[in-house]
Amino acid sequence: MGETDTTWTDPSCPVARATDLVGDRWSLLIIRDAMDGARSFTDFQQRTGIARNILTDRLRKLVAHDLLTQVDAPSGRRKLYELTDAGADLFPVIVTLRQWGERHAFADGEAHSKLLDAHGSPVPALTATTTDGEPLTADNTYIQHVN
Amino acid sequence: MGETDTTWTDPSCPVARATDLVGDRWSLLIIRDAMDGARSFTDFQQRTGIARNILTDRLRKLVAHDLLTQVDAPSGRRKLYELTDAGADLFPVIVTLRQWGERHAFADGEAHSKLLDAHGSPVPALTATTTDGEPLTADNTYIQHVN
Repeated sequence: MGETDTTWTDPSCPVARATDLVGDRWSLLIIRDAMDGARSFTDFQQRTGIARNILTDRLRKLVAHDLLTQVDAPSGRRKLYELTDAGADLFPVIVTLRQWGERHAFADGEAHSKLLDAHGSPVPALTATTTDGEPLTADNTYIQHVN
Repeated sequence: MGETDTTWTDPSCPVARATDLVGDRWSLLIIRDAMDGARSFTDFQQRTGIARNILTDRLRKLVAHDLLTQVDAPSGRRKLYELTDAGADLFPVIVTLRQWGERHAFADGEAHSKLLDAHGSPVPALTATTTDGEPLTADNTYIQHVN
């Protein structure tokens, strides 16, 4: 990543490194909005309703971590933000959060936004499976720790 | 969810509701550790290194949101924490965070823990695809917003 001075919470755990980089609500919502076409400070501010000073801080961190990059707007004046390859690669994280939210954070019939493919079909649930398609959960997997 | 008084950041967005419920580093690491077998306050405290007052707060919230449930230890004295069905269903979220971390938050050759299936094989990458297996990204999907 861009910053070499990151102090990791749990250096050998990829989950912990990921959450150190993007594991806060605002960073995840900024990434969500960038995937949905937000590019300017104002875009992000209006979509999230985030306070300007917090948005400034989170955008700065996401750029420092190489998840967003700043580009000049065609008109010249403003800076725009674009996802880097690493930022765009958070798509499965955002989709699994979305799909979990759909399953567990809405009452029956309560309206929510939907993620659709180019043909207007809902994106199928991302599930962990073996290469043979056997379902995987925390109960039939284990973590091999390193020291 | 358990608390009916939740104030949602962006009520119609499932990503935002999910991040309101679990979108902070400590909650995600507590869920990670519960999936890896942590059950007591001390288990969580030792694995995350989290300050006790923050751990107390996060465990309380995760129980209030029905992601963890408290059970009596066989010995009687202590309370143990177990994932609810909704908590266990965060497995794909934790796995996609892990897999993103493996791809983007480690230098080549840097050691990290691994998630293995019962046969010792790495868990294949979770990717978004159509039902026909066509890869999906933010560029070939769109969000249908509701009002």
